[in-house]
Amino acid sequence: MTFTVSRALANYPNRFDPGSLAELAPELRSTIERRINVLGPGYSLIYREPVGFVSGRGAHLFDAEGNDFLDAYNNVPCVGHCHPHVVEAVDRQMATLNTNTRYVQNNLVEYAERLVATFPVELSRVTFACSGSEANDLAVRVARFYTGHEGIVVTRYAYHGITRETASFSPHLGTGSPLGPNVRLIEPPDPRLVPAGTTLAEYMREQVRGAIADLERHGHGLAALITDNAHTSDGIFTDPVGYLQVMIDEAHAAGGIYIADEVQSGFARLGESMWGFQRHDVVPDIVTMGKPMANGLPLSGVVFRPEVSDEFGRNVRYFNTFGGSSVPIAAAAAVLDVLETEGVAERVLATGTALREGLREILAESEHVAEVRGAGLYIGVEIVTHRDNGTPDRSRTEAVINALRDQRILINGTGIGVNVLKIRPPLAFTFDDVGRFLDTFAPIARTHL
Amino acid sequence: MTFTVSRALANYPNRFDPGSLAELAPELRSTIERRINVLGPGYSLIYREPVGFVSGRGAHLFDAEGNDFLDAYNNVPCVGHCHPHVVEAVDRQMATLNTNTRYVQNNLVEYAERLVATFPVELSRVTFACSGSEANDLAVRVARFYTGHEGIVVTRYAYHGITRETASFSPHLGTGSPLGPNVRLIEPPDPRLVPAGTTLAEYMREQVRGAIADLERHGHGLAALITDNAHTSDGIFTDPVGYLQVMIDEAHAAGGIYIADEVQSGFARLGESMWGFQRHDVVPDIVTMGKPMANGLPLSGVVFRPEVSDEFGRNVRYFNTFGGSSVPIAAAAAVLDVLETEGVAERVLATGTALREGLREILAESEHVAEVRGAGLYIGVEIVTHRDNGTPDRSRTEAVINALRDQRILINGTGIGVNVLKIRPPLAFTFDDVGRFLDTFAPIARTHL
Repeated sequence: MTFTVSRALANYPNRFDPGSLAELAPELRSTIERRINVLGPGYSLIYREPVGFVSGRGAHLFDAEGNDFLDAYNNVPCVGHCHPHVVEAVDRQMATLNTNTRYVQNNLVEYAERLVATFPVELSRVTFACSGSEANDLAVRVARFYTGHEGIVVTRYAYHGITRETASFSPHLGTGSPLGPNVRLIEPPDPRLVPAGTTLAEYMREQVRGAIADLERHGHGLAALITDNAHTSDGIFTDPVGYLQVMIDEAHAAGGIYIADEVQSGFARLGESMWGFQRHDVVPDIVTMGKPMANGLPLSGVVFRPEVSDEFGRNVRYFNTFGGSSVPIAAAAAVLDVLETEGVAERVLATGTALREGLREILAESEHVAEVRGAGLYIGVEIVTHRDNGTPDRSRTEAVINALRDQRILINGTGIGVNVLKIRPPLAFTFDDVGRFLDTFAPIARTHL
Repeated sequence: MTFTVSRALANYPNRFDPGSLAELAPELRSTIERRINVLGPGYSLIYREPVGFVSGRGAHLFDAEGNDFLDAYNNVPCVGHCHPHVVEAVDRQMATLNTNTRYVQNNLVEYAERLVATFPVELSRVTFACSGSEANDLAVRVARFYTGHEGIVVTRYAYHGITRETASFSPHLGTGSPLGPNVRLIEPPDPRLVPAGTTLAEYMREQVRGAIADLERHGHGLAALITDNAHTSDGIFTDPVGYLQVMIDEAHAAGGIYIADEVQSGFARLGESMWGFQRHDVVPDIVTMGKPMANGLPLSGVVFRPEVSDEFGRNVRYFNTFGGSSVPIAAAAAVLDVLETEGVAERVLATGTALREGLREILAESEHVAEVRGAGLYIGVEIVTHRDNGTPDRSRTEAVINALRDQRILINGTGIGVNVLKIRPPLAFTFDDVGRFLDTFAPIARTHL
């Protein structure tokens, strides 16, 4: 049996190449062969030597031999793998009741109110779904209904989902997945792209203006500007903040709305605030969220200004069987409990700062590192052939990722050039974990960077 | 505060009318008002007097006062509310590990193999997602990629999902949700529609042929014919079987494929077989499944002929964060255990037959019942103003649904005329439950039917 790397994954960072199956231990090889046979070529594993786990706790994953891997990559188990408070809440709800939103559920109403209370007062309605893809799909349906327009503006390498609709404005999926005719791309807020004599805000404003003009020229109009405010698939651009309001102003002036995709940047990931857009001091029209919402149980949400969503709600039936059912909601409520009682945002701010500062210290002299950036526990290290030329160095990036994996630390890559280390641990990451990460990273950096 | 019924729900059976909030007990009223405020007008409750529960077991749901409601409606908790084997599997997995498909997971491979083994050998690949909507959305993406065509043929009142794409071929969502320009509707396989001198199979074949011709005339071509083989939103049409192969032949002749949407009819719901299409002795090109798959945890699946899916998999990246993660897969494996060890399909065949026969006996003399139909535990009772004229009687249908609810039995309605009682209990429904249902139904039938 021979397998080849799929073209769909050519630009996917750090994928496992099935062509190297023969190099793996027999048992692992056999499992992966069975996996490829039943799941097909569309499923990807990561790392040159794929890894599997049997248990997890906090920011740690354990393999069958009991080896302790430090998880510096998974954002879904945000309060930590198998957090006891979440496990207990799910166990209790599973044994009691799991029904849908067509029945009166107190826990649904209570959670919805708690969630909405974490937003500016203008954002007072929530709809639940299962995945970030479903959340963004619904957000855009509402945007189109509300504005009467079809056009979408996203950043050059954005990822917003895998439904047909959301894939049509997810350039990150690569050339195998075509963009919609109504989709326009702008550059991410990378300060290095700003022409001399202007500001980041003006640069972003001009880009939005140009994209809208082109959409209008083609008869689409603007339905929505959508951004992930950590620009994670573009390469992680979190700072400086403050450019977002003028982009929103342009969207509004064209009769469009602004959707903040908080699937990556929400739930205290960036440390300073619950939601990424809050760092910019703006109020979106719609906010979408997903991955960490229920610490791994499938749940996503869309929060709306009521004036944007209510007419859609009155005219278009939307019932999501699992979205808002009792068990995922119980898990999500437990996540909010932990975020509040453990002071997670403050800890994230502190551990994130320590991790970034440690990385900067280790990498200060490196010729192959263009930048260490990020906010909270979303950190990017941009790797280049030489800091003087800024040319993306994908192979060096993947070498570092795999060297860390061999030392039992899990990260991955991102960015248009697939040359940015993506360091995005569970928010349960402790100062001890920061120490272990830096201690392991330092000698690898000396070798590779 | 005043609320009005949303237009989106005008054709939704048995919805609660927020205009009658004042008639409810203060505590229930207060919860529903809070619910409307935070969830908006798009969320619907069912029954004239909405109902909420605090626990569930088997086919029974219990309210805060301890009243025992017989659940003859919910298909999601297929092996029963809070089935201990599923609860235990989820508890164990929650406390141990919940990761995604980018790591090697033995339980994922094992479940995928078990699931695929329930299909004809031609269907050997599976992809996991979160919801039936995501499953159908992916199925159609693959169909378009494989065929190079855009057209979709579904039945007149079909429901296939709530992503933008799947909503575009879900006429059941009503006039607020527009169909795609590439979508054509055919009548469901209601034997009463077949013109004299022809057969149901010929009638369905001619309809598919006509729809394809029109799609081709408009330049769309046929990507996929999609059917729910219990035609549940069309009004529940399960029999006679045997017409499906000629429909598939027409689809293939036009270069399209056939997708069996088994979200409603799968997992032994129809009693005789694991999958609804098996009653027709056909082999689909793609099969989608969802709701009962993990007994209430969000999980769905798409099973493919490899020749249909592999090129898509090689060219289009598809990663579903929650789809196939450890906890939903553990729940789904536990569901398969129960289906096998409890002999669920055989029981469903027997309880379903007993329930249908009991209903037919009770309703034999009714002037307002056109038909009692269905298979396994998917049963429809079609209610008309008079059996001689066949005119749908929606208000009588809703009166029966609410009279049953007042006697603590849960069902709902369906059908193009919203005039078919939809009786679709958890597969855990016992002969005792059948007895209670019929004992409660008989006097209500005497009053209303």
